Order: sequence, then structure tokens, then C-alpha cells
Amino acid sequence: RLGPRERRPRPLSVPGQGTRDHPPAHTALRDRLLAAVVACFKRHGAAAIDTPVLELRETLMGKYGEEAKLIYELQDQGGELLALRYDLTVPFARYLAMNKITNMKRYHIAKVYRRDNPATTRGRYREFYQCDFDIAGQFDPMIPDAECLKIVHEILSDLQLGDFLIKVNDRRILNGIFAVCGIPESKFITMCCSVDKLDKVPWEEVRSEMVGEKGLSPEAADHIGEYVQLHGGLELIEQLLQDPKLSQNKLAKEGLGDMKLLFEYLTLFGITGKISFDLSLARGLDYYTGVIFEAVLLQQENDHVEEPVSVGSVAGGGRYDGLVGMFDPKGRKVPCVGISIGIERIFSILEQRMKASGEKVRTTETQVLVATPHKHLLAARLKLISELWGAGIKAEMLYKKDPKLLKQLQYCEDMGIPLAAIVGDQELTDGVVKLRDVATRKEVDIPREKLVDEIRRRLEP
Amino acid sequence: RLGPRERRPRPLSVPGQGTRDHPPAHTALRDRLLAAVVACFKRHGAAAIDTPVLELRETLMGKYGEEAKLIYELQDQGGELLALRYDLTVPFARYLAMNKITNMKRYHIAKVYRRDNPATTRGRYREFYQCDFDIAGQFDPMIPDAECLKIVHEILSDLQLGDFLIKVNDRRILNGIFAVCGIPESKFITMCCSVDKLDKVPWEEVRSEMVGEKGLSPEAADHIGEYVQLHGGLELIEQLLQDPKLSQNKLAKEGLGDMKLLFEYLTLFGITGKISFDLSLARGLDYYTGVIFEAVLLQQENDHVEEPVSVGSVAGGGRYDGLVGMFDPKGRKVPCVGISIGIERIFSILEQRMKASGEKVRTTETQVLVATPHKHLLAARLKLISELWGAGIKAEMLYKKDPKLLKQLQYCEDMGIPLAAIVGDQELTDGVVKLRDVATRKEVDIPREKLVDEIRRRLEP
Repeated sequence: RLGPRERRPRPLSVPGQGTRDHPPAHTALRDRLLAAVVACFKRHGAAAIDTPVLELRETLMGKYGEEAKLIYELQDQGGELLALRYDLTVPFARYLAMNKITNMKRYHIAKVYRRDNPATTRGRYREFYQCDFDIAGQFDPMIPDAECLKIVHEILSDLQLGDFLIKVNDRRILNGIFAVCGIPESKFITMCCSVDKLDKVPWEEVRSEMVGEKGLSPEAADHIGEYVQLHGGLELIEQLLQDPKLSQNKLAKEGLGDMKLLFEYLTLFGITGKISFDLSLARGLDYYTGVIFEAVLLQQENDHVEEPVSVGSVAGGGRYDGLVGMFDPKGRKVPCVGISIGIERIFSILEQRMKASGEKVRTTETQVLVATPHKHLLAARLKLISELWGAGIKAEMLYKKDPKLLKQLQYCEDMGIPLAAIVGDQELTDGVVKLRDVATRKEVDIPREKLVDEIRRRLEP
Repeated sequence: RLGPRERRPRPLSVPGQGTRDHPPAHTALRDRLLAAVVACFKRHGAAAIDTPVLELRETLMGKYGEEAKLIYELQDQGGELLALRYDLTVPFARYLAMNKITNMKRYHIAKVYRRDNPATTRGRYREFYQCDFDIAGQFDPMIPDAECLKIVHEILSDLQLGDFLIKVNDRRILNGIFAVCGIPESKFITMCCSVDKLDKVPWEEVRSEMVGEKGLSPEAADHIGEYVQLHGGLELIEQLLQDPKLSQNKLAKEGLGDMKLLFEYLTLFGITGKISFDLSLARGLDYYTGVIFEAVLLQQENDHVEEPVSVGSVAGGGRYDGLVGMFDPKGRKVPCVGISIGIERIFSILEQRMKASGEKVRTTETQVLVATPHKHLLAARLKLISELWGAGIKAEMLYKKDPKLLKQLQYCEDMGIPLAAIVGDQELTDGVVKLRDVATRKEVDIPREKLVDEIRRRLEP
């Protein structure tokens, strides 16, 4: 009979729904990816900050519109009411307001939390990384905005993800369109939500939502439809600036003027080839006030489709000039523009590609295995490995008193360790170490005092 | 009159109690510190893993003894009951059991959460980083344990934190002591908690807790006191192995035998000078089963005190052979030993030291500011900076159409940017860029096509 201790059910050894563990191969690839993103952010002069995962609940409330229901709340265990951060933008705005900072270029790479319906096969999780770059401050129009787009362009090019397109629009242009189509201002945000669906569903569906659920007249909806299905470049901006109705709307005119300026700067950066002014781009979040953008990967050419099809958003962002003011006691505004790189989706793509190619990621960086060919040499191994560590060499040994040489060499093969440093009685007597190249199986005796230099020489790129 | 919108109180712009934002100077120093720790972990062949911040509540229950009340729980919003991880060790054990891994050397650097009484002045926060290195697997005794101590020794030496001491003990020795002093097994854990206080309070206080609160006879307490106030090296181990009572206790004998072996290996590593076998070391957590250790910094010599005094623990760890089995459906055990580097306390020390020395950390890595000496040259700046970014140079420009040269140079001084690349009409005509060394104020015209090479040459270390 089992005692009460044995009968107690063991805890489930699984992570929570929509979250996951990252094993070594995963973490090594992700670290490599994040390093490329950080390198780009640093190339553009950004400083790093960090904020807590826990925020006061009231900090997050009223910032995310309908999405607020997805915020993770902590139990009231006495003290403050807390929640897990939903993105890195609201904490950044809080940070700026709290420290009265009016001018800052920062990046922040960290996990955020959303009680979303997990779709783990499509790379959507409840805990996921965001990689944000933002520029806060009152500057001349569109210069920081253009740099944000340049950064997205650089990162997606550096990572060699295949062809991509960066869609650009402006909330002021959208709001201007809604206004000239006779929509009351109170409905602008819900209209944005409808328009935002155009990348997933056809216009007819969006139209029927506008007419059926949101109470628009069919004429108003059709009128909106004429605008939001347009996309192009500088010539479309010029055309809309001449549009008899839009050109009369102050907001739309401002937005179109800035869009023209933005394209001018992007031309100087030489990246307009991958930029599309797309009037269907709306983005869901409440806090955007000006230019908005979203980058999508296009189907690869070898997929034999006639027109490139979007396979999902990998970066997004925009201007949010009002958010910092929501945290300032006097409502002082700090204009901001920023981007967020969708690292999880990019990771999924890279992972699939590596699987397909059969390429393996090394999960450790060990350069040398310290090995012995026969028994009673643990002390010799411990002394030698200690010397190597002291010289900054990445070294391992098996945690057995008397491991078989074959097992030790097999470990090198399994882990991709390029060199083995072997000491036996003979080597100890001769004052040498047998250095073995694991790939070629060639062995050479190296005088002990020259071992570190020889290892360094062999590992030079 | 204000409208209802304006009257709504603005959200507090502060982080939660016991948590904090990390501004750029802080983050830059911390990243440097973490890089040194990661370098050491990689030198010892560890792979990185990552686990979710959110764990199932049942995963954490029954692992932390009295400390369990400090676990942050999430609100029941439907679905699973969740909590924030309390350390990185329990998630590691869950990960091993879930994936049936019996052999792994991993590191994990991430934030953990404790609803502790924050003592932010002493560097104790509710959200803080842990840096863990653990070796899981059935190996020959004390080889992985010795490597853990070697790693602590390397990290504390590399960081040049001043003199330190690593205290070592074994739970089996402590339990053996309790047994020979006539304490029932059910009281072993609470006895450990009492003994663990000896680094903060004198023996008399611990004794009166044992007698007063925990119901020990004065004789039993005194008997314990004779043992737990001992500390020393190999000679103390030998002495206790000869102790007529302890040597009769199976657990104590095992522990002392392993301790002797450990000191043998540490001698080969050449680090026994900073290791103390200290019988007062107990460590609070329930899950330790064998060797335990804790590193403390000693008061600096220039503090003019006769004997070095501990100024706080900066690393700790031990062997926990039963934890993985708690998650395995069949209770299969995977022996583990690991260390945790107290990065937050180390950070506080380094921060204070930098403040005292007046040394400033650069928060960005920008190498060149692209500047213009007069108006109407925004396009020239955008083209030049784009070239530099394309060549991998870290470059910034001010986000103004027509910034004053003085302001641009001032920005270089403020941010520690070493070079300014200046283009005016004359330079454009001549096909050159004026490269200015910010420190010496020397300017040289460089042909545009040689600019990138010249910048690289100047920035070589």
C-alpha cells in the first residue's frame, strides 16, 4: 500500500496554455536573431532601457481599446492592483512622463503578455518578445518617421527573409476620408478597426460590416471603399492632393503633405522600391495619431504565383503624439514615433528554413574537450582544464572519473566541439598535450606551454 | 468649464512598489555585467534555455517552504491558475522532467518575482534578475559540484569586486548533526532555517529561537551550537570524520566524505584559498539535498577593520537531487547541482563604485554624427548617413531641417560621439567630407569614397 505522500498526484510538468519553453537550439537561434536587431538599433544611435513586466493596472487601462480584455491581471494579494505589460509602448510613454524626458531615442527588447486565443502553429503565443525602437521629441516633420522605416528596411534586408513590402498610411488621411464621407468623428476609431481587416478579408465583407453592424449608409460605405482600396506611391499622393473633396479637409491635407515629405526622404534613403502608400492600412491600436506602417513578407518568387501575396506582418508601428500626455499631470505632450519588429514570426520563418535545409545550430560554443586516454587521470584533466579556462578558452570535460576515450570523442562529434586536448601518462611525462582535430582526426603533440597559443591559432576564423 | 474627458484623473506615472525602471546608464552597465557572466557560463560549455515567466500555480506549490507566501498569483480570468516564477530552478526541473532530459548543462538569465518586503536601498526588489548555471545528470561525485564553485570563483574574480569568500557545507552533514543531537527528522528543515540566520545574528539569538520557539531542550541546542559554529578547511573535515558521534551517522559520513573529495578537486583548480567549509551555512530553500554554497564579499582592506567582515551574499547554490523527480510521473530522479549569481547586488556595488570614481558609462555606441555647417542641406545629410549605415557605421544626425553647427557639435560632446562628418556646399562641390575629431577639434577633408575606410581606421582600438 502506498502512503499518503505517494498517493498525492504529481504536479503537471507542462507550461501554461499559449506559453512555451525555449530549448537550447531555439534559444541559440533566437539570440542570434536578436543580436542582428540590436546591432541595427545601435547603428542608429539608440540607448536601451528596461521597465518592469508588472505595471499598475491603471497605467494600462484606456490605452488599447477593445484589446484591453486581453490584459493579464494579477490577483489582489494586498497592496497595488497590478497587470502584466501588454506592449512596450505604453510603459515607454509612462517612463517618459514620469521622468519628464522630452527627447529620447531608445530600444527595448522584452517579453509582453496577451490573453489571446493562442494559435501556436501560426507562431502566436500569449508570451512573446517585442523588439521596439522609438524616437520621442519635438522635431521637424517626418525626419524621425523616415528613419523608422529605414530601420525596418535594414533589418528585413539584413535577415534575408525574402521579398517584403512596407505599407504606409496616416491616421489623419484615414480620418479625413471618413469625414468627407460623412462619418461622425465618434465613429472614426471603429471605422479604423473595420478598414484594418482589409488585409485579411475582401472589401465586400468589410463593407457589409460597415453597413450591417456599424450602421453606415450604403453610399457612405461605397464612398469609403473608393478611397481605401487605393495604393501606390508619390503619384497617388499627388492625385489625392488634387482630390476635390479630400484637399478641402484640413487633416487629410496635413497627412498627405507629410506623406509627400516622407516619400522625399525615403527616396534619399533609396528605399521607396519597397514602400507602398496603402490607404487600407489602419492598424488596430487606439493611440496612433499620424503616420502608420506595417511590413509584410511577400510570397517567394519560386512559389509560381502571378502576383506576390502577403504571408504576414513582420513589423509595424506609427506615430503616437498623445500617449505621453495621458501620463503627464499637466497633459504635456511628447510626440513619438516608433516601430516594433515581429521577432516571433521572423523566428518561425528562419526555423522552418533551417529545418528544410538541414542546417544545425550549435547550442554551445565549447572549443576544446579535455580528454584522457586511460584510467586514473582525473587530476590531470582538472589541472589542464583549469589552465584553459584561465586563458579564456571555452573548454569542457566529461564528469566521469574514468571515461572511455571513444565516449569523449563521441561527445565532441555530438556537440560540434572542434578540438580535443588529450593527456595520458606518456604526454604528462613528455610535457606535451595531444591536440586532436575532431573533423580530420589528425593528432599532434604540442608542448604544454604552447597549447593555449596553438588552440587560439587553430580557432582563428 | 472642463469637459468630462479633462476631469478624469490621469493615471499615476510610476512603476509598482518594489519594481523599477532601468534608464539607459543603468541598462548599459547591467548589459556589460551580464555579458561577463554569460562569457563565463559559455566558457564552461553551457547552453541557454528560456522558460515562461508564467508557470502553472501547482508547479510552484510545495517547493519553497515558508517562502511560498511570496509568490505572485495571477487573477483567475478563466482557464488555468497561473503564478509568476519565483526562481529559475523549479522551472528548470519542470523542463527536464517534461522533456525527459537526464543530462544537461544549461544557463538561464531572466527576471524572477517575489512579493517580498522591498528594501530598495539595499538592492532588494520584487522583480530582479537571476543568473543561473546548473548541471543535471548522474555523474561521479563532486566533479560537477567543483565546477560550480570554480565558476563562482571565476566570475567574482573577473568582476574585480574585491576580496570574497565562498562558504561550503552539505545538507547531509547538517542533518547528521541534528540527528546525533537527538532532533527528530520532522524538525530538520525548520532547524536549517534557524541555523541559516547565523550569518546575521549571534548564536545566542539562534539558540533562544531553537529553545523558545521550536521547543528544543537547552542541551540539544548547545550540542548543535558546538558544531554549527565551526569553520575551516580540509583539517576540519578530517577532524569531523574522526568525531565519535558524527562518524557513526551514515548521512554525515557520506557528506563529509564528499566534502573531502570536493576539497581535493578545488585544490587541483587552485581555489581553496577562498573556500571555507562553514557548518553554519544552511540556506533556506527546501529542495537542497547535498552540498550547498554561498559566496560573500568581504570588507575592503582599506576599510581598516581587523578581521574581514562579510558585506553580503553575491552568489549561492547547491545540490538538489530530488526536485526533478517531483515533476516526473514515475518519480524518476535526475541529480542536479547549480549556482545563482546575485547580479542585482553586484550591480549595486559596481554602480556605487562608478559614482565614487566619477566614471561615466556611454549609453549609446554612435561613432559618427553626420552634420552640416549651414542651411538647406538636409538632403545631403540624409544621403551621407544612409551611406554610412549601409557600411555598418553607427551614425546619427539631428532631426532638424537646419540645425546649428554648434548644437550638432555639442550633441557629440554630450553623448561621447568621437567623430563628426560634416558636409557643406563646398564639400559637396569638392567631393569630400570634413571629418572632425570631437576631442581634439582637428578637421581633415577626406575624399567621399575613402570616408568609410578612414572612419574605420580612426575607430580601431
